[in-house]
Amino acid sequence: MTEKITFNIDKEKNFSEWYSEILDKAEITDLRYNVKGFVVIRPLGAEIIEQIYKMWEAELKAKGHKPCIFPAIIPEKNFKKESSHVEGFSPEVFWLEEIGEGKMALRPTSETAFYQLYSLWIRSYRDLPLKLYQRANVFRLETKATRPLIRAREFFWIESHDAFSSKEQAEAQVQEDISITENLMHQKLGIPFLPLKRPFWDKFHGAEYTIGSDVLMPDGKVIQQPSTHLLHQEFAKSFDIKFKDDKGKENYVWQTCYGPAMSRILASLIAIHGDNSGLVIPFCISPVQVIIVPIYKTENKDKVIKKAEEIKKELEKEKITAEIDNSEKKPGEKFYHWEMRGIPLRIEIGEKELKGKPTLFLRDTKERIKVNLKDIPKEGEKLDQRLREKSEKNFKTSMEDCKNREEIKKALENKKIAKCNFCSIEKEGEKCAETIEKELGAFVRGTRHDKKEKASGKCIICNKQAKEVIYIAKSY
Amino acid sequence: MTEKITFNIDKEKNFSEWYSEILDKAEITDLRYNVKGFVVIRPLGAEIIEQIYKMWEAELKAKGHKPCIFPAIIPEKNFKKESSHVEGFSPEVFWLEEIGEGKMALRPTSETAFYQLYSLWIRSYRDLPLKLYQRANVFRLETKATRPLIRAREFFWIESHDAFSSKEQAEAQVQEDISITENLMHQKLGIPFLPLKRPFWDKFHGAEYTIGSDVLMPDGKVIQQPSTHLLHQEFAKSFDIKFKDDKGKENYVWQTCYGPAMSRILASLIAIHGDNSGLVIPFCISPVQVIIVPIYKTENKDKVIKKAEEIKKELEKEKITAEIDNSEKKPGEKFYHWEMRGIPLRIEIGEKELKGKPTLFLRDTKERIKVNLKDIPKEGEKLDQRLREKSEKNFKTSMEDCKNREEIKKALENKKIAKCNFCSIEKEGEKCAETIEKELGAFVRGTRHDKKEKASGKCIICNKQAKEVIYIAKSY
Repeated sequence: MTEKITFNIDKEKNFSEWYSEILDKAEITDLRYNVKGFVVIRPLGAEIIEQIYKMWEAELKAKGHKPCIFPAIIPEKNFKKESSHVEGFSPEVFWLEEIGEGKMALRPTSETAFYQLYSLWIRSYRDLPLKLYQRANVFRLETKATRPLIRAREFFWIESHDAFSSKEQAEAQVQEDISITENLMHQKLGIPFLPLKRPFWDKFHGAEYTIGSDVLMPDGKVIQQPSTHLLHQEFAKSFDIKFKDDKGKENYVWQTCYGPAMSRILASLIAIHGDNSGLVIPFCISPVQVIIVPIYKTENKDKVIKKAEEIKKELEKEKITAEIDNSEKKPGEKFYHWEMRGIPLRIEIGEKELKGKPTLFLRDTKERIKVNLKDIPKEGEKLDQRLREKSEKNFKTSMEDCKNREEIKKALENKKIAKCNFCSIEKEGEKCAETIEKELGAFVRGTRHDKKEKASGKCIICNKQAKEVIYIAKSY
Repeated sequence: MTEKITFNIDKEKNFSEWYSEILDKAEITDLRYNVKGFVVIRPLGAEIIEQIYKMWEAELKAKGHKPCIFPAIIPEKNFKKESSHVEGFSPEVFWLEEIGEGKMALRPTSETAFYQLYSLWIRSYRDLPLKLYQRANVFRLETKATRPLIRAREFFWIESHDAFSSKEQAEAQVQEDISITENLMHQKLGIPFLPLKRPFWDKFHGAEYTIGSDVLMPDGKVIQQPSTHLLHQEFAKSFDIKFKDDKGKENYVWQTCYGPAMSRILASLIAIHGDNSGLVIPFCISPVQVIIVPIYKTENKDKVIKKAEEIKKELEKEKITAEIDNSEKKPGEKFYHWEMRGIPLRIEIGEKELKGKPTLFLRDTKERIKVNLKDIPKEGEKLDQRLREKSEKNFKTSMEDCKNREEIKKALENKKIAKCNFCSIEKEGEKCAETIEKELGAFVRGTRHDKKEKASGKCIICNKQAKEVIYIAKSY
């Protein structure tokens, strides 16, 4: 279908254009659906999203969650039950035309759907913990500029909603959610992130606190990845979710929710690992892990193709997904095609390889090495490890201690995250955050959740005693 | 959570009440969401739906389909492009409240979304066939009475949309779609069906013809399962989907679409295999294939539980999903619990089984047998085979040749499908079909697609020369 693809945009110099181009050239999305905020996700994008879904679902199940399916339609009266939630989400809601059965919304998130039923399902401490998730499309009426996979009006996520008999258990769940993100997004997919406790004014509408996961994109903006929320008990009170403890005493449950968005994770994956030749998909989730390219002349065509098929079978025995590119294109065109699509490993089979070891091309380093077939899984693991180490290295050098506004400004200009002393991430700090937003076009993203960082000296803005070390960044 | 469940409704005598009760008692759905046509699907229901999705997706992929994700929102102007489609679907559409960007609908089906892009993606015969599918929730504003999983306002399906360079290839695809339904729904899930070519007046809005799959429910009503459509070329013309053939000549593509609804297949599965003790889930898709119930006294508890764990590990080695019921309930309560939920095999481990072979309970026949662990997969297969044979036997005796209205009426009263001579399933037969609907409350479902049946004599209604042998049934 496609011939040799020219792709001459430099990722570091012009990330924004590079990102748009790669979505198109690697056939991840198509923007020509012509409805703001709604894009078509093409097979390669859909296959990667499917793999990411599978990873998260398996992990959630392993941690005691069960799947369920809630309606995509939420009655307005459900929204209205929890006041901070309705205030926060109302501007972002798509409403259905009235059909005479009351006002109804397309779900922007499903707390107010789940919790109506939780109040019916939970009676006793024996019903707890209740840990359910659903795979769902959700809808938000973004009025700002939308970006494919990053900020959309429909996106594809998992939402888990858990209920517990104590605050301690709920907080342990928040911790478990973060460790799921760490295991999957960082360790498996090689996308490091900052787990940040969001400031008071930026937490989830209805949460006591929110831990977000900020990934730094190559243009110096952070993008929020899976966030997890300890809900305040107003939710349980609004929806009347009570249980009797083992002494017969009635209590409200403690709740958490967690929402990894597969389409957004795909966006980070493209941005973090891609290069000027196209995508680089981690081996562990690549829909095609090994592409086999036969290189032949008329006289040895049959032998080469037979060898390619043997290799495919061998790999499939090892549970590796392999495909042979039997198209009529020239080998060079095939190479470009699969490099653009980010297939992590390529086996090239020509006359030489009929007898010797196959030639293996590594998508990330673009090296060619000779390997035994049985070492392919190890090469895949090594590739994933290199991707992770590279992104970790970038990430570690991307935080800069700043002592004043000038230094923050400079750090942001250098596409970094600024770190500084700050008065407070509770309500009293909101004014200072607004100053930062106004003067620097950047946001107070929060404080480290994974370690204690002790503030010293004065708030960088108001000069009051600093209580927190905060992270400031431009954001998507 | 639940104690011993009383369930005293006879499936044969009162199917409708039995169906409602079982959805509730087996915790498949919860109807208390209180929005007409939208139900909550609980973990067991969601897990079975997930398994059915996986089966169909694997089969579609094996047959050359790729996944993709299209928006759930379709602009009105897309609908309007194909006149019979817009006329057919408009009354059933949920519209969004206007946001100033044109009128937009929640998809009732996605032809008019896919084909906008197909006209951009298809240029040459090399781009064909194009075979894509998506897993999606779709929305229809049912005004009739809704029934959980059977007739809903939101349901969960796969829709595949295929484009070809010739009508022959498109017709071969229709055949492939039917064989997928046969392999999965009939052979694997044990749900036999009639593949029927729908009458002219009952085909898909925009199709040249539609082949439906009618499953007979225990109350004598048929339910339409996966249907496949050969679209007329008006779609290609309306959306301008053209390709150049190998001689450079431009042609419109030929298209098909196919739509298995997982939630409906689940409804049939419950209805066909369930009995007066609850669900019976086929072994091949049961989320838990073997439930292990330890039966112990204080003195042998540790040994019995250890044995149960050993057995679980052994089964998992064979890729069988097994769980141990370690709850505090009495063995009898556990038996009821898992029988209600339809888990196909149960292993009971007590003092006797510590040394001898485990006792295996078969959910369908309710027999207890002694087996070697290594024979469990075979017992699972045998159970599925028994389910299929039983439903085939019922199905085979459920069609009755009828010579006049009186006989049709009787057949329908006996919960059967009536078979008779009929003038025509083209436009000229519509009047006779209306008479049948009015007089008998039943519908002309179509003619056999899987075999030629030769009509003889007169149409049972109008007395003109009969051209077709048709099937008449009450329907959901």
